Amino acid sequence: MGTNSPYSSSLGVLPHIHERHHENFFSFKGRTQLWADKYNDSEGRLLTAGDYGSVPTNTTHTFQLLDPDTELVGVIVPGGFEDLFYFLGNANVSYATQTPFVPADVSDSAGSGSSATIISELESFDVYAQLSFTPRRDFVNGTAPANATWHDGSSTIPSVAGTPYFLASGWGPKYLTGKYGAWQIVQPFVTPTTGEHDFTQCTITLSRQPANVSLPSWNLTDHTALQVLEGGLKVEVGNETATLIGGDVVFIPGGTAFKYQSVAASSKVMYVGAGDAGLDQQLLKSARSWEYVSFPTYWP
Amino acid sequence: MGTNSPYSSSLGVLPHIHERHHENFFSFKGRTQLWADKYNDSEGRLLTAGDYGSVPTNTTHTFQLLDPDTELVGVIVPGGFEDLFYFLGNANVSYATQTPFVPADVSDSAGSGSSATIISELESFDVYAQLSFTPRRDFVNGTAPANATWHDGSSTIPSVAGTPYFLASGWGPKYLTGKYGAWQIVQPFVTPTTGEHDFTQCTITLSRQPANVSLPSWNLTDHTALQVLEGGLKVEVGNETATLIGGDVVFIPGGTAFKYQSVAASSKVMYVGAGDAGLDQQLLKSARSWEYVSFPTYWP
Repeated sequence: MGTNSPYSSSLGVLPHIHERHHENFFSFKGRTQLWADKYNDSEGRLLTAGDYGSVPTNTTHTFQLLDPDTELVGVIVPGGFEDLFYFLGNANVSYATQTPFVPADVSDSAGSGSSATIISELESFDVYAQLSFTPRRDFVNGTAPANATWHDGSSTIPSVAGTPYFLASGWGPKYLTGKYGAWQIVQPFVTPTTGEHDFTQCTITLSRQPANVSLPSWNLTDHTALQVLEGGLKVEVGNETATLIGGDVVFIPGGTAFKYQSVAASSKVMYVGAGDAGLDQQLLKSARSWEYVSFPTYWP
Repeated sequence: MGTNSPYSSSLGVLPHIHERHHENFFSFKGRTQLWADKYNDSEGRLLTAGDYGSVPTNTTHTFQLLDPDTELVGVIVPGGFEDLFYFLGNANVSYATQTPFVPADVSDSAGSGSSATIISELESFDVYAQLSFTPRRDFVNGTAPANATWHDGSSTIPSVAGTPYFLASGWGPKYLTGKYGAWQIVQPFVTPTTGEHDFTQCTITLSRQPANVSLPSWNLTDHTALQVLEGGLKVEVGNETATLIGGDVVFIPGGTAFKYQSVAASSKVMYVGAGDAGLDQQLLKSARSWEYVSFPTYWP
């Protein structure tokens, strides 16, 4: 779910928890403050383009958009949580110009001014307001508390489920494979463990397909979604072929054959897949640990 | 000039000035610290994607790349400064995989370890080392000195030439025109004044072309360059048509007819043009001041 918005001087939503949904924040552009509080650890991070935050169930969280041109991509598992947005929205709008967001200063009824009635109604959507939670404002250089590692050292993914975590763009674990022709660098956001085997998420940076290696056809049990972050991706799904550019998304139902390749020297896509044996896990089988966001100068 | 690189624990280049060249830093991705010192004012900013820094002549400046996946787009006026990079480069390399940068930790001979011989040679390229300059390290929340306005209020462009300045993405001046069919939002980086009538630079955010308005053909006296930042741009130059995606560049010599349109609901391009009567200035003639990075819901 992509959400565009200008900055706000107040929280984008009342602090709350989800009892059943795992929420994943990916910063597509602009700057967003994200807070996550669980297990007596209250953390805040300033997300810039490419950064990620994991908010598992029963984590008190909220966020605030800080730039005039901010876009988040939210992955919320299991499916169905989008019903909340249909409930909160005024109408199923469709503008002639397809503007990313209405250019106007609007108050958000889901924000800090929510009424008691709405707060109560939201519980049926798995949104439980945490009215006693005050997000810490002692950010220094992108983190609260100060001096947390953030864009100045490795970001790590917990080895257990349930703990909130943040990954700075390019600072997380990286794995390289050339098994399928093109170089592919997998940067996991959500592992089978932290996704509780319901979903995984990562970015894949890929080179062009070398001319002498035929493009593999994939057919995965579970659903796959790809969103282009950089460059462009030519995708064949069943009998359809499309070239996706920045921001475009392809959804591939489980059991459907598909192929993909970069149409640029280097492209980067975000992967989200159901289950714990999706495209990322297939690529990781042949991958080795890698220190860089760029691929080698030579072919595999 | 696009430059990709991983992070470095030291300055990317010795502090220096240019006596004849105006250097412009645009942050394409990742994070970069940029310092500019002139007129007894020493400023540093943390640039994230979309931010811009202007370094006019006789400004002591340097920079440091902070993220594993950092890319800058440099505009250096007048032309010819690229000879420095040919001098510093080891070879005119061409890698089979077209990797954005060689995945290796390399030291930069233009960096703080430069020899006296190289420092002397660089002067013939209009690079004058300022060995007594120590960049301030007292950054707090993206600025040095602390508490400068940066991503938390308007960025402004000086009304006179020669002064260094920084513009946070989306926080600078914005102007909207619908005169040519599509909505276009111009966000200036360099005005005729600050570019000393040699060049101007801006971003243009544009909607699709409405079906009932024919696409205008432009023919400008001076050279034009466009780089796609978001979405995609279909460009016709002379008899050629191409669709540009993120990172792609088109250069249009002065006196050449061209047309352009967005192939996405919203696209954003960076414009650089010679002189002081380029595309940006033509668009601004019919534009009004605008508060948003998105365009209206209705057609002009």
